Amino acid sequence: MQAALSQFVEDAKQVTVGESIRTQHGRDMGYYTPESPDVVVFAHSKEEVSRILKFANEERIPVIPCGVLTSLEGHVIPINGGISLDLTHMNQVLEVRPRDFLVRVQPGVTRTQLNRALKPYGLQFPLDPGADATLGGMAATNASGTTAVRYGVMRSQVLDLEVVLANGSTIHTGGLSVKSSAGYNLTGLFIGSEGTLGVITELVLRVYAIPESTVAARAIFPGLSEASDAAYNIMNSGISMGRIELVDEYTIDAVNRAKGTSYTTQPTLFLEFHGSEAAVQADVAVTKEVCEEAGAADFVFETQEDARNLLWDARHDAALAVIQTAPQKKMKVTDVCVPLSELPQAIRAARETIDAYGIYGAILGHVGDGNYHVIFMVNPEDAEEMRVAEEVNHRIVQYALERGGTCTGEHGVGIGKIPYLAQEHEDTLPWMKSIKQMFDPNGILNPGKLFTQQE
Amino acid sequence: MQAALSQFVEDAKQVTVGESIRTQHGRDMGYYTPESPDVVVFAHSKEEVSRILKFANEERIPVIPCGVLTSLEGHVIPINGGISLDLTHMNQVLEVRPRDFLVRVQPGVTRTQLNRALKPYGLQFPLDPGADATLGGMAATNASGTTAVRYGVMRSQVLDLEVVLANGSTIHTGGLSVKSSAGYNLTGLFIGSEGTLGVITELVLRVYAIPESTVAARAIFPGLSEASDAAYNIMNSGISMGRIELVDEYTIDAVNRAKGTSYTTQPTLFLEFHGSEAAVQADVAVTKEVCEEAGAADFVFETQEDARNLLWDARHDAALAVIQTAPQKKMKVTDVCVPLSELPQAIRAARETIDAYGIYGAILGHVGDGNYHVIFMVNPEDAEEMRVAEEVNHRIVQYALERGGTCTGEHGVGIGKIPYLAQEHEDTLPWMKSIKQMFDPNGILNPGKLFTQQE
Repeated sequence: MQAALSQFVEDAKQVTVGESIRTQHGRDMGYYTPESPDVVVFAHSKEEVSRILKFANEERIPVIPCGVLTSLEGHVIPINGGISLDLTHMNQVLEVRPRDFLVRVQPGVTRTQLNRALKPYGLQFPLDPGADATLGGMAATNASGTTAVRYGVMRSQVLDLEVVLANGSTIHTGGLSVKSSAGYNLTGLFIGSEGTLGVITELVLRVYAIPESTVAARAIFPGLSEASDAAYNIMNSGISMGRIELVDEYTIDAVNRAKGTSYTTQPTLFLEFHGSEAAVQADVAVTKEVCEEAGAADFVFETQEDARNLLWDARHDAALAVIQTAPQKKMKVTDVCVPLSELPQAIRAARETIDAYGIYGAILGHVGDGNYHVIFMVNPEDAEEMRVAEEVNHRIVQYALERGGTCTGEHGVGIGKIPYLAQEHEDTLPWMKSIKQMFDPNGILNPGKLFTQQE
Repeated sequence: MQAALSQFVEDAKQVTVGESIRTQHGRDMGYYTPESPDVVVFAHSKEEVSRILKFANEERIPVIPCGVLTSLEGHVIPINGGISLDLTHMNQVLEVRPRDFLVRVQPGVTRTQLNRALKPYGLQFPLDPGADATLGGMAATNASGTTAVRYGVMRSQVLDLEVVLANGSTIHTGGLSVKSSAGYNLTGLFIGSEGTLGVITELVLRVYAIPESTVAARAIFPGLSEASDAAYNIMNSGISMGRIELVDEYTIDAVNRAKGTSYTTQPTLFLEFHGSEAAVQADVAVTKEVCEEAGAADFVFETQEDARNLLWDARHDAALAVIQTAPQKKMKVTDVCVPLSELPQAIRAARETIDAYGIYGAILGHVGDGNYHVIFMVNPEDAEEMRVAEEVNHRIVQYALERGGTCTGEHGVGIGKIPYLAQEHEDTLPWMKSIKQMFDPNGILNPGKLFTQQE
């Protein structure tokens, strides 16, 4: 297969069967059992992607498109071997159109790379899922993160995708205007399709002016109940928050240990306000009042960029800090989203469940969207530890689904959420499978993700 | 057929073949040739919709779902006869969840009806396409209008749809959480599908706090160039506008004649600012400065609700005012959207084209989104007038498509934009047709819309 694939790329070195590269492409940031691909191809152009897919489609070889492998639900694991199609070398910012608030990028561009390219224009791409993910990967999972409360999710940012389909043909799904009612929304269909319908080879994204003023704040609460009530009350006050993140005392403790900081180890809201100077000042004042009413013991805010970044680093690196609490283990993280009013009770219930099972679990979340995570550190070899973590996860997912929530707010389905997708969307699942069948009749594109393998 | 259909509804009176009702259901607000349905059925429940679709599917009878018939591209015209499935009796606001910023409604609820139900909660559904359309119809065309620049289009508001499919089965496409990465985005696929994939029988929509402060303003410019430049500069200043609407001197003149007002007959920007008191004050000040720099002769603003509404009535009723300039004629309206930076030149080009053809055309538009309309009054019986209007429309659409824009920003494809959809999405059109074939294999749902009739 290596020889065959080498014909389709510029340089045979783009095709590798080397052990270390294959091993690296056999895992993501989650805890799922690694499986190496048979071969890794580093694509350099959509033409190469097209030739590789055409070949793989004819030969019925699985193709797993991937970026920097930061997914959490096993999306990029080649569970049936095949080709890991690595798109990280396709990492050009092709065009910045500052006057249209648009950029055109290749899928391997990461969000921090894009922001470096945008900064000279006073522009930003605000979505931040935590990891320095590629924009192709973020589109593939409909990623979001801390700023989605203000700017929306990945699906709201993408105006056009260039996609290579399983048969090797290339389509453009959208255009350059910010809205359109022209036909079925294929852009939105490919976003969140996790590499199962096609390979994204180019994206047109909305970008935004860097706000005139940004203020970061931290509000510390005696308990999780007070913090989550405050989060809900802030959202209910009508303030358009830039970010609003809840971090529990376990996470703060992990951050302090990882970074040598000395944050009060109590549930904390990390907040960010974006807008004009006047608007931000007004918003901070209202928020401080709401937090104090809800019982905040302290409310600290920072206007200078360095101090702001320092404050946000704590939140931003929280997952990494939790990982460092147990370096020999793997991260397992829940990712549910509930209607906003359910959030305070949902977070209390999650803590009770974790404690009832007697395990370590840190809670944090994008509480302005009703999206929260529990991070467990698990040893995948320890069957009992895995069983308990799985059961806690199961209970948290069921809790969300019973309230009209979703089994995944932003991480996607991958391998880990397959049964829950089937539960959440029982009546549309057959249609999703028909769409899959339509675009990928031979089932070569990231097989075994989203759905159980089609026989 | 009347007798057969009567079995499927509670009361046989819901099924009518009366001439006047059929005639009424044979047209929309556009200029397309009316065609009466064979029968009109007023559905009262999803169960009735399901039984009717199952029957129609077995008997291969066209079904045209419709609301208050305010579409502009012939969407609701039964070009092959069949059943007009009128959903306006399904007009219950089923549930207001103020603490979740959600409502659950039936498809026949209109936007003003919904806003009346929301007002006691301090909430609003801000989307406003002009007509008092039904929410089902707005979802079916991915409608937007004046506030989309702030809140996004219909596709951004809908969290869940209940849809009855051609075979009579019912699906739910989403859930109650504001974001989800669980599988393929069927909600987004049904929105904008114009009744060709299924019949929407329930919607869950996001709703928003009524802003603390709203200020409306009007900026009057010596010419269209100055007005559209100012619009672009306002958007570029980073202000989050509530509304930003350009209305040309022809439209102002029509408004003055229709409403007895005496607005200066010059190109005018109608503006609205939403937010906290402090933020709005700051935004108004910046906008006034930008307008004056661009050559605004006058800048008037209103903070009181009555005065604001009076000011906005002029913009809101502009299309109706233009219609009143030629009551014996029908309205034809272009609806393109271009990348933002292209807008000033695009509007100048549209005016030049209209003038070169020597016809009457009023320009107005949602200029914060790059979306603009030209309204012509035409006599569909006058072949020469129709030819000229068609040609001007054609040139305006080509202008937009050549710049990466879209042939329809918000009205949808219907009958009128079929060739342009094929041009704009040449490479995805076969896939759109496959999706249609998948959900509606017998082609009973609104046949002849979006695509030319499938043989």
